[in-house]
Amino acid sequence: MNKHEKISPAVIRRLPKYYRYLGELNKVGINKTSSRELSEMTGFSASQIRQDLNNFGGFGQQGFGYDVGNLRNEIGKILGLDKKYKIIIVGAGNIGQAIANYTGFYEADYEVVALFDKNPKLKGFSIKDALILDSDNMEEFLKNEHIDIAVICTPKSVSQQVAEQLVRCGIKAIWNFAPKDLKMPEGVYVENVHLNESLFSLTYYYNKMKKESE
Amino acid sequence: MNKHEKISPAVIRRLPKYYRYLGELNKVGINKTSSRELSEMTGFSASQIRQDLNNFGGFGQQGFGYDVGNLRNEIGKILGLDKKYKIIIVGAGNIGQAIANYTGFYEADYEVVALFDKNPKLKGFSIKDALILDSDNMEEFLKNEHIDIAVICTPKSVSQQVAEQLVRCGIKAIWNFAPKDLKMPEGVYVENVHLNESLFSLTYYYNKMKKESE
Repeated sequence: MNKHEKISPAVIRRLPKYYRYLGELNKVGINKTSSRELSEMTGFSASQIRQDLNNFGGFGQQGFGYDVGNLRNEIGKILGLDKKYKIIIVGAGNIGQAIANYTGFYEADYEVVALFDKNPKLKGFSIKDALILDSDNMEEFLKNEHIDIAVICTPKSVSQQVAEQLVRCGIKAIWNFAPKDLKMPEGVYVENVHLNESLFSLTYYYNKMKKESE
Repeated sequence: MNKHEKISPAVIRRLPKYYRYLGELNKVGINKTSSRELSEMTGFSASQIRQDLNNFGGFGQQGFGYDVGNLRNEIGKILGLDKKYKIIIVGAGNIGQAIANYTGFYEADYEVVALFDKNPKLKGFSIKDALILDSDNMEEFLKNEHIDIAVICTPKSVSQQVAEQLVRCGIKAIWNFAPKDLKMPEGVYVENVHLNESLFSLTYYYNKMKKESE
């Protein structure tokens, strides 16, 4: 499936949404769907959806719609959700603990193996099955355990330094919650969750609506 | 400034990023910047940045660059960050508590006034200065307090119902952390933070990189 390599980031962003909606159809026992139905659920146009899914070899047949379970499985495979992933979380403050506790993604096979924090008061505590360990032991830990994804939940003042340390230890995928962009070498993928920016956008639209309704 | 009304969502998404970077320049005492420098910091092209900022009447002068403090203030005003906002959080589980504790956005004037939860064990606890109250009292609370923004951190099974209740009580801006899109009437703005989708995208790129380096 070398075709994947030319898929645009915008398409990749939409796949998790298709995956989620197909899961919801599945749960209520619906086995067949159409680009039109998916369009109503997702808000993307039906032609957009057909085009997106054609990127991956064309599921479904003209006029027959999509098999919900099959399409969901295929999208899951494209995203890599059929594999297992080991995760560490750096920074066991509120956001770090929330991520460790977050059950939403356990449907896929992500395992939080450990959290790391500088705060000695947190040492020895665990969240679900993941121990909170001392940050000083992180490099040693990463030498002995294969970790797929590291989540950065530290203050932004140390996030770049933490990211560099992770990369030195072989980490190639970083989920970054610190409100600062990371400068990373080629071959490291960073996915940012910038909560501030999300809230600021919301604030803009809130004010715009208020003005319009005055 | 009626021009605002035609600004595309993509531009609005970039403004918080400019705001953040200008804040970082400000903090280290840099007073002047250029679209080229902002381009290096943000990863957007210099012409994109000039075009974005021109939407709002054109800050800065050709060849003279931008005044950092002034530009940041102006962007802050466009976003509405010069005003105060009262927030409630519905669902005081891990994510809800993390948001209440999150200090990142206190730089702007957002005040978490209360959290609401169904769990009686949480009743009476407070996070920073915000009490955790019984969900059953939410409608009554909203009759007596003007709230600008409601954050939904409930399980997805009840998120739609909670959102409808909020809208009935006059809420027009929802920050949604439940992994389910909300169906809302015109005049309500929903900003979604779908953590699953973010993690799934990361997973896709992680696998793609691994495959390419094999």
